[in-house]
Amino acid sequence: MDFSTIIGLIVGAGLMIWAITGKSDISTFMDVGSVAIVFGGGISAVLISFPIGKLIGVMKVVKNCFFTKVTNPKELIADMVKYAEVARRDGILALENATTEIRDPFLVSGIQMAVDGTDPDQIESILLSDLEAVEARHADGKAIFDGFGRYAPAFGMIGTLIGLVIMLQNMDDPSKIGPAMAVALLTTLYGALAANLVALPLADKLAIRSREETAVKMIIIKGVMAIQSGDNPRIVEQKLKTFLPARMRVGEESESNAKAA
Amino acid sequence: MDFSTIIGLIVGAGLMIWAITGKSDISTFMDVGSVAIVFGGGISAVLISFPIGKLIGVMKVVKNCFFTKVTNPKELIADMVKYAEVARRDGILALENATTEIRDPFLVSGIQMAVDGTDPDQIESILLSDLEAVEARHADGKAIFDGFGRYAPAFGMIGTLIGLVIMLQNMDDPSKIGPAMAVALLTTLYGALAANLVALPLADKLAIRSREETAVKMIIIKGVMAIQSGDNPRIVEQKLKTFLPARMRVGEESESNAKAA
Amino acid sequence: MDFSTIIGLIVGAGLMIWAITGKSDISTFMDVGSVAIVFGGGISAVLISFPIGKLIGVMKVVKNCFFTKVTNPKELIADMVKYAEVARRDGILALENATTEIRDPFLVSGIQMAVDGTDPDQIESILLSDLEAVEARHADGKAIFDGFGRYAPAFGMIGTLIGLVIMLQNMDDPSKIGPAMAVALLTTLYGALAANLVALPLADKLAIRSREETAVKMIIIKGVMAIQSGDNPRIVEQKLKTFLPARMRVGEESESNAKAA
Amino acid sequence: MDFSTIIGLIVGAGLMIWAITGKSDISTFMDVGSVAIVFGGGISAVLISFPIGKLIGVMKVVKNCFFTKVTNPKELIADMVKYAEVARRDGILALENATTEIRDPFLVSGIQMAVDGTDPDQIESILLSDLEAVEARHADGKAIFDGFGRYAPAFGMIGTLIGLVIMLQNMDDPSKIGPAMAVALLTTLYGALAANLVALPLADKLAIRSREETAVKMIIIKGVMAIQSGDNPRIVEQKLKTFLPARMRVGEESESNAKAA
Amino acid sequence: MDFSTIIGLIVGAGLMIWAITGKSDISTFMDVGSVAIVFGGGISAVLISFPIGKLIGVMKVVKNCFFTKVTNPKELIADMVKYAEVARRDGILALENATTEIRDPFLVSGIQMAVDGTDPDQIESILLSDLEAVEARHADGKAIFDGFGRYAPAFGMIGTLIGLVIMLQNMDDPSKIGPAMAVALLTTLYGALAANLVALPLADKLAIRSREETAVKMIIIKGVMAIQSGDNPRIVEQKLKTFLPARMRVGEESESNAKAA
Repeated sequence: MDFSTIIGLIVGAGLMIWAITGKSDISTFMDVGSVAIVFGGGISAVLISFPIGKLIGVMKVVKNCFFTKVTNPKELIADMVKYAEVARRDGILALENATTEIRDPFLVSGIQMAVDGTDPDQIESILLSDLEAVEARHADGKAIFDGFGRYAPAFGMIGTLIGLVIMLQNMDDPSKIGPAMAVALLTTLYGALAANLVALPLADKLAIRSREETAVKMIIIKGVMAIQSGDNPRIVEQKLKTFLPARMRVGEESESNAKAA
Repeated sequence: MDFSTIIGLIVGAGLMIWAITGKSDISTFMDVGSVAIVFGGGISAVLISFPIGKLIGVMKVVKNCFFTKVTNPKELIADMVKYAEVARRDGILALENATTEIRDPFLVSGIQMAVDGTDPDQIESILLSDLEAVEARHADGKAIFDGFGRYAPAFGMIGTLIGLVIMLQNMDDPSKIGPAMAVALLTTLYGALAANLVALPLADKLAIRSREETAVKMIIIKGVMAIQSGDNPRIVEQKLKTFLPARMRVGEESESNAKAA
Repeated sequence: MDFSTIIGLIVGAGLMIWAITGKSDISTFMDVGSVAIVFGGGISAVLISFPIGKLIGVMKVVKNCFFTKVTNPKELIADMVKYAEVARRDGILALENATTEIRDPFLVSGIQMAVDGTDPDQIESILLSDLEAVEARHADGKAIFDGFGRYAPAFGMIGTLIGLVIMLQNMDDPSKIGPAMAVALLTTLYGALAANLVALPLADKLAIRSREETAVKMIIIKGVMAIQSGDNPRIVEQKLKTFLPARMRVGEESESNAKAA
Repeated sequence: MDFSTIIGLIVGAGLMIWAITGKSDISTFMDVGSVAIVFGGGISAVLISFPIGKLIGVMKVVKNCFFTKVTNPKELIADMVKYAEVARRDGILALENATTEIRDPFLVSGIQMAVDGTDPDQIESILLSDLEAVEARHADGKAIFDGFGRYAPAFGMIGTLIGLVIMLQNMDDPSKIGPAMAVALLTTLYGALAANLVALPLADKLAIRSREETAVKMIIIKGVMAIQSGDNPRIVEQKLKTFLPARMRVGEESESNAKAA
Repeated sequence: MDFSTIIGLIVGAGLMIWAITGKSDISTFMDVGSVAIVFGGGISAVLISFPIGKLIGVMKVVKNCFFTKVTNPKELIADMVKYAEVARRDGILALENATTEIRDPFLVSGIQMAVDGTDPDQIESILLSDLEAVEARHADGKAIFDGFGRYAPAFGMIGTLIGLVIMLQNMDDPSKIGPAMAVALLTTLYGALAANLVALPLADKLAIRSREETAVKMIIIKGVMAIQSGDNPRIVEQKLKTFLPARMRVGEESESNAKAA
C-alpha cells in the first residue's frame, strides 16, 4: 500500500483512539447500530448512485491502485531505450524473449503486438483504448469514494436525529438523557471520520495515482510505437522524456532546483 | 428496476427501520403533518422551478429509465452486424421483416426509414434530433431530482422551525417539551432521508443511465447509416466498436485487464 | 402567470399555513419586525449589489416573463410559413397588413423592417441586438432573484441572533424565555421560506422561461430573414424546424417517443 | 457614491438599529472586543492572503469606483463623434484644444497620443494595456472584498467560540450566563452583518461597475483609433454603437422594448 | 518572509490572545490533546491525500516562496537589457563573468547555456520545463494548504464530538459539565483558527506569489532567448515589457493611473 496512506491512516486512527482513551473508555465509543446506520446508509446511497457492475469492478481496481507500486517513469524510459537497442541490433523479433521478464501486462501486450507485426495504427488504437478504460475505472473509483464521503456524514446526521427523537420521547429518567445523547452523537462522529479520515483523502490520492499511472502508460504507448518504427534508441529516449509530466519530475529534481523555486 | 437501485433502497430503508425499532416504535416516527411539509414543500418548490409540462413528461421518462433494461451494447453490435449481413445478401428491403422482431422503437424507426429509401442525411438528422430530445428529457429528469434533493432538506428545516416556534410558545407543561421537540425534528429527518437516500442518489444514477443510453443510441445511428450505405458487415462491426465508450467497456474487460490497472 | 408557478406557490404556502394552524395560531407566526429584518435586509443587500436602474427595469421584465404566455414555437413556425406564402404570392409589401394582427412587437418590428426594404444585414443585426438585450435583462433578473435567495436566509439568521442577544440579556423572568426565543426563530423561518419557496425556485423558472423565449426569438429572426430573401415557404419551414431546440420539442413528442426513451 | 449602494447601506443599517432599539438598547449590542475580533481577524486574514501593495492600491481604486460617476456610454459616443467631426474638418491637431475640457484622463491620453502622431498600433497597445491594468485592479478589489466576506463570518464564529469557552469555565453565577452568552453571540452577528450587508454586496457591485467601465474604455479605444485614422464621423458612430454591450443598453431601451420582453 | 503575511499573522494571533486574556487566562485555552486531534488529524488526512514525496518537496518550496524576495520585474528587465548590451558589445562569451554576480540560479543556468552555445530550441525547452516543474510544485503547495484548511475544521468538529460524548456519559457532577464542554469546544476553535488564520490565507498568498514568479521566469526565458539571438538591447526591452502582466504593473502605475481607474 502507498506509504503515506498507511502512515496517515495509522497516525489518524491512533490519535483518535489516544484522544478517547485518555479520558474515557474506547468501548463507550463503540456502537454496532451506529456503525450500521453510517456505513450501511452510506453504502446504500452509493449502491443507488452507481450500477452494481461498476461498484464490483472498482473495488478490484482500487486495491491494485493502492497496493501495486507505480512504475518509476525514469526506470521505465531506461527500459524502453534498452528494448529499442535490442530491436535495432537483433531485430524486433528478439524482443519476444524480453517480454517474459516484464511484469507490466500493459507493456507486454504492446511489445507482443509489435513483435507479431500488428499494424502500427491498430497497436496505438488498442493501447489507447485500454488506457482510456483504465482511466474510466479510476474516475469511477474516485466518484464512488467522493460519493461515500458525501453520504456518510449525511447518514451520520440522520442517525443522530433518530437517536435524538428516541431520547426526546423518553425523558422520564433524566439520568439517561446524557448517555442517550452520547450514543446519538456517535453516528455524527462516525460519519465525520469516515468522510474526513478515509473516503475524501483516499479519493484525492486515487486521482493523483491515476494521473501518475496515465503518464506511465503514455510513455509505454509512445515507446512501443517508437520501437516498432525502428527509431534510434537515442531518439526514443528524447521522445519519451517529453512525456515526463512536470508534476512527476518534481520529486527527482527537487534537490538541484530547490534554490530556483 | 435497476438491480443495485433496488438493493440500495431496500437495504437503506431497512437499516433505518431496524435502527428505529431496536430502541423505539416505528409509529413514533410517523407523522402525517411532517410528511406533508417536507414532501409537499419540496414538490411545491419543484413545481415553481419547472414548467408543469416538463414535470409530467419527466415522470414517464424516469419510469422507463429505471424499469427498462439498457440494451447491452455488445449484443446490439452483433445484431447490427446481422442486419448488415441480411441487407448485403438479400437487399435492404429484406430488413422489413426483421423490424417486426426488434423491441427498441428507436432502432425500428431507423431501419424503417432505411427500408423506405429515405435520404441518408435526413435519416441521420431525424435520429440525432430524437436522441437530443431523449437526452434533454434525461437532463430535465436529473435537474428535477437534484432540485427536490436540494429543497427537501430546506423544508425539513422549515418544518422543524415551525415545530420549535409552536413548542417554545407553549412551555407551560415541561413534560410535553421533549415529545414536541421530537416531532419537530422529524421533518429534518424526513428531509435528510428524502435527499440522501432517494433524490440525490437517483439523480446520479439517472445521469449514468442517460450516458449509457446515449451510447447505445449513437451505435444504432451509426449502424443504420452504415447498413443503409451497404457497408460490408465486417466494416460495420469495426465502425461500431469505436463507439463503445471506455466507461462502458469497463465491465466486460475487467477480468482480462484487471492486472493492467 | 405560469400555471405550475401558481400551483406551487399556493400549495406551498397553503401547506405551511395548514401545518401551523393545525397546532397553533397563525397570528403567533406573524411579526412585523421579523418581516422587516428579513425582507428589508435582503432587499438592502440586493440594492447594494445591483445598480438601481437594473432593479427597476428587471421588475418589469419579470412581470412580463411570468404573466405573458410564451409563444408556442410550432404555431409560430406555422405563422411564419403563412407569411412566407403571402410574401411569395403577393409581394413582401402585402405583409404590411399582416403586421396589424400580430401581437408580438418583436415579430412586428422584424416584418416592418423587411417591408420597408431595410438592408438584410441590418435587420438581422438589429433583431439580434434586441434579443441580446432581452437575454441580458433575464440574466439580470435571475441574478437578482438568486441574490435575494442568498441574502434572505442570511438576514434571517441575523434577525435570530439579534433576538437571542436581547433574550439572553433579559432572562430574569424564565416564563418569557420560550416566547422570546420563538419570536427570534421567526426570522430564520421567514428567510428559509423566502429563499426556498419563492426566490430560488423563481430564479430557476426565470432561466427556463428565458431559454424558451430566446428559442422563439431565434425562430422569428431566422424566419424574417428567410421571408425577406423570398425563400420558398416549404424551405422556410424546414429551416425554422432545425431551430426548435430539443428541450422544447420534449413536450410535444413525449407521447410518440415515450417508448423510445 | 453609487445611489443604490447608499440607499441599501442606509436602509439595511437603519433596519438593524430599528430592530434592536424596538426591544432593547443599542449600547448592549456594542462591544469593542467583538469588533476587534471580527474586523481585526478578517483584515488579518486578508493581509495574509494578499500582498500589501495590492491592498493599498485597491482601496484607492475602490473609492474611485464607488464615488466617480461612470461615463454614460451614449453621451460618450456623441462626444467621440464630435471629436471625429473636428478632426475631419480642422485636422487632428485641432483636437489639442478639446483635450483641455475632457475630464477622463484615459480619453485625454488617447487623444493626446493621436495628436502627437504616435504610431496607431502603439496607441492601441498602450490603451489596451492601461485597460487591462484597470481591470486587474478591479478584479483584485473584488477578490479582496470576497475574501473579507468569507473570513469575517469565520472570525465571528471564532469570537463566539472564545466567548463560550470563557463562559463555560465560569458558570458559578448562573445569572451571568445569559449576558455572557449574549456578548459571545455578538461576534457571530457582526461577522454576518459585515459579510452580508457590506462585503459580499459591494464585491458584486464592484464587478458590475468594472464591466461598465471596461465597456466605456473599449468605446474610447475604438473611437480614438477611428478618429486617428480619419474615419467619417457617421462611420465612427456606427462602429462605436456595436460596442455598446447589450447589458448596458437595457436601461435606455426598457421603455420601448418592455412589451417585447 | 512576505511583509503583509507577517503583519497579518502577528496582528491576527495578537488579537486572539488579547481577546482571551482580557476576560480569562490564556492557559485555559491551551490543551495538548486538542492540538493533537486538530493538527494531527489534519496532517493525517493530508498524508493520505498526497504522496509523501510531494509533501516533503513542497515544504521546501513553500519556505522559499515565503522567505525569498520575488525579483522586481522592472529591475529584472533593466538587468536583461544590460546583459544584452554586454553580449552585443563584447560577444556572448563576455556574459560568463556576469553570471558570477547573479543570484537567481534560473537566470544563471539560462545565460550559462547561451554562453555554452547550446541549441536555442533546447535552451527554451529546458527552461520552460524547469518553469513547469516549479509551477507544479507551487500548485501542489496550494493544494496541500487548501487540503489542510478543509480537514482542520473537520477534525476540530470531530474533537468536539469526542469531548461531548465523553462529557455526556459522565454527567454525575454538574459542576464539571461547563469546563468539560469548554475543553470540547477548544478543538473547534483550533480548527477554525488553523483554517482561517493560517492555511486558507496562505494558500491564497501562495497562488499569488506563484503567478508573480511565473511572470518573472517568463521574462527571463524570453530575455535569454533574445540575448542569445543577438537582439538589439532596445528591442529586448520592448519584447520583455509585453511580458509584464497587467496584474503586476498595477503597483507601479497606481499613482499615475489612479484617476483613470
